[in-house]
Amino acid sequence: MSEQFKLDKEFVEELKQFVSAGNETAIYDCVNLLHPADIAEILDIVNLEEAKFIYRRLDEEIASEVLVELEEDVREMFMKALSAKEIAESIDHMDSDDAADIISELSVEKQEQVFSEIEDKDQADSIAALMAFEEDTAGAWMATEFIVVKDTWNAGQCISEMRKQAEDVSYVYTIYVTDKEETLIGMFSLKSLLFASDDTLVKDLYMTDVKSVKATDNIEEVGSIMKKYDLVAIPVVDEEKKLLGRITIDDIVDVLEDEAAKDYQMASGISEKVESSDSIWTISRARLPWLLVGLLGGVLGAKVIGLFEHQLGTFPEMAFFIPLIAAMGGNVGVQSSAIIVQSLANNTLDMGTTYSKLAKEFGVSLINGLACSVIIFFVIWGLMSDLRLGMTVSLSLIAVILFAGLFGTLVPLVLSKRKIDPALATGPFITTMNDVVGLLIYFLIGYVIYF
Amino acid sequence: MSEQFKLDKEFVEELKQFVSAGNETAIYDCVNLLHPADIAEILDIVNLEEAKFIYRRLDEEIASEVLVELEEDVREMFMKALSAKEIAESIDHMDSDDAADIISELSVEKQEQVFSEIEDKDQADSIAALMAFEEDTAGAWMATEFIVVKDTWNAGQCISEMRKQAEDVSYVYTIYVTDKEETLIGMFSLKSLLFASDDTLVKDLYMTDVKSVKATDNIEEVGSIMKKYDLVAIPVVDEEKKLLGRITIDDIVDVLEDEAAKDYQMASGISEKVESSDSIWTISRARLPWLLVGLLGGVLGAKVIGLFEHQLGTFPEMAFFIPLIAAMGGNVGVQSSAIIVQSLANNTLDMGTTYSKLAKEFGVSLINGLACSVIIFFVIWGLMSDLRLGMTVSLSLIAVILFAGLFGTLVPLVLSKRKIDPALATGPFITTMNDVVGLLIYFLIGYVIYF
Repeated sequence: MSEQFKLDKEFVEELKQFVSAGNETAIYDCVNLLHPADIAEILDIVNLEEAKFIYRRLDEEIASEVLVELEEDVREMFMKALSAKEIAESIDHMDSDDAADIISELSVEKQEQVFSEIEDKDQADSIAALMAFEEDTAGAWMATEFIVVKDTWNAGQCISEMRKQAEDVSYVYTIYVTDKEETLIGMFSLKSLLFASDDTLVKDLYMTDVKSVKATDNIEEVGSIMKKYDLVAIPVVDEEKKLLGRITIDDIVDVLEDEAAKDYQMASGISEKVESSDSIWTISRARLPWLLVGLLGGVLGAKVIGLFEHQLGTFPEMAFFIPLIAAMGGNVGVQSSAIIVQSLANNTLDMGTTYSKLAKEFGVSLINGLACSVIIFFVIWGLMSDLRLGMTVSLSLIAVILFAGLFGTLVPLVLSKRKIDPALATGPFITTMNDVVGLLIYFLIGYVIYF
Repeated sequence: MSEQFKLDKEFVEELKQFVSAGNETAIYDCVNLLHPADIAEILDIVNLEEAKFIYRRLDEEIASEVLVELEEDVREMFMKALSAKEIAESIDHMDSDDAADIISELSVEKQEQVFSEIEDKDQADSIAALMAFEEDTAGAWMATEFIVVKDTWNAGQCISEMRKQAEDVSYVYTIYVTDKEETLIGMFSLKSLLFASDDTLVKDLYMTDVKSVKATDNIEEVGSIMKKYDLVAIPVVDEEKKLLGRITIDDIVDVLEDEAAKDYQMASGISEKVESSDSIWTISRARLPWLLVGLLGGVLGAKVIGLFEHQLGTFPEMAFFIPLIAAMGGNVGVQSSAIIVQSLANNTLDMGTTYSKLAKEFGVSLINGLACSVIIFFVIWGLMSDLRLGMTVSLSLIAVILFAGLFGTLVPLVLSKRKIDPALATGPFITTMNDVVGLLIYFLIGYVIYF
């Protein structure tokens, strides 16, 4: 067994030196032995000229896999530098779904050039068909390479027919069975075929209980079905149940990761998907929207405090706890909305009503609110011996925590009912609203207690 | 093909009525046709008595799969209600890794009872061996069911030997090859075996380039290897490269999801993994720690403002923008730390130094800081015609944004270098620190400008 390859800085440095020395043989020798995913990782970090030089030393099949594995932004830049013919040669070796993804990243003009250079016209047609599906549908994610047999065959016929089909299919997980009309009627495992004698009939092998998805289904839904039923591949059919393609678990892993990353960034107030390797401009642009919402919240907060300027002039110590009230409202709101957003993302069947969720959050907020208020009361009393301020802050705190908890629970539920992504609620909106309302509560309670 | 089963409230209600009527046949008929994952989902939401009644109507094999699919907290409660014999019967049908997971959830006393009831003593031994591995290692996650052949065999021998082994293995992805010492030396696909003639030698079939992991490797690292190389299964070996088991992608999907959920909750200030279905106490306990950190931050904030009480007494309008300064520091800190945390989680090879990351964040913070300060300057000038306050707030804002951005970048990098989970930095710590430092900056700049 080969020692597992460790990508390290020394290796990359050595490679760069080969490039600058123009040593084609050395590069060929040390790169073609690597896994395409490792080569892609190297191309992701060297500069464009170096990447092109290395890429052109690769065997054709490896080059095509490397192209698939590159990071999207690197690939985009990279493909601008390659000719349509070079891209088409790589496309010829790809699975149709990867090919479609990659061609869609090109300009319309270059797409046409690449299409005209693709030698396998069937492949070109499948790619064009996949590109017609809307983004984020099962159709856009499926591969048209799969193994399919007829229900009238026997095992021997299957094996000889599969020898032809299997060339195009990198991983065979299951064999699909269709009838005369190409309607999906069942499937069986490679294992059962291996153990069957040549004259066993397909109809005695296959199971009719097949989970399938429609080409128009949302890919995130496909992901949760595959996850729930522990499927490695799922067939994709059209409205008439004709078999169109299959989606494999490695794509779903990417979908799930993307989804998680998106939710995470949304909760952190980043409005579009960015990576630390993106440009300063891209990152700034993705982060500015939340800051502007925060700025608006701050201005509204200033307005609220301004209303109580007189109160503050008389009792300036009330200003001390403004940050505490604002921060706690934001914190509780983020916590409660995060729990709802996650439960909305995971549960397909949830018997709890909005009312029961609010009741539960009321319980949680009450417990935590009481704990925090009691603590802050004694801290203020102990540190400042100010009973009145202690009462104001601790009463406000529990009120703010209750409000923030319920509001943080309600908003994502309402958004989700209106088919808006509930994760939107976790970031800017909840925090800002809770800041402003929290201040209002604080000064109103202060007004009642002090005057 | 069977219509895909839609779990809905009506169905569950009907089932509950069958239970209360004690109609065993009706339950048997409508439940055993379902997929175990669907049955588990039903048991997750009905009450314990109903769940037990339904569970006892299941065929033995289905019952064991349902037990695996139940939510952890439901299963724990559920297993307390089952006898050791009932659990052992289910364990007999499970893959070793699922069995080990489930037994570990029992009390030590009940574990012993269950072990003594397991009929297949080999199965009991494998389970005990798996339970000896530390949590979150590859060893704890692997299944000991896999297909292994000797390098001296031919294809015909493989098939007849595999007929025996394959009974225990639900999904065969690859066939592993070992030598006399049971050392893993290669693997080949089921597809290549299917197409080989009976007298083809194993040594002409197998590839020696096998990615494997050690039993002591961390499961999250295993996940990123499988993801990177698009693997459906990976063999697990010991220090001497003896083959011990395999990890399949469905487990990794769970690992990745758990990891994402944990990071998400950490960023939202929830300190242990909770679900919306957990008890009010559990949720409160998971949320209280951040609130206490926030409370401490609020008290420190009060101390800082208290230092400038005199300044605030003379210029009470400075209090208006306390929430804005505090909120913006927190927001920027969360954004910048989130980007670093994600890049640390994804990139295995990162050439960027701490210095270059800080330089980039400086650029981003400068752009967004400038944008926000210019806006707030004109807002304050326009709304309040107060040039001095406008200057104070806008200067402080850009200083706070720069500080928060750099601090938010630095903290997760430092934590990660010290092998502490950098996600810890995204929630309470960064926000609280930034609140306090932000206030200090604001009042110091105010002091310079006003006095």
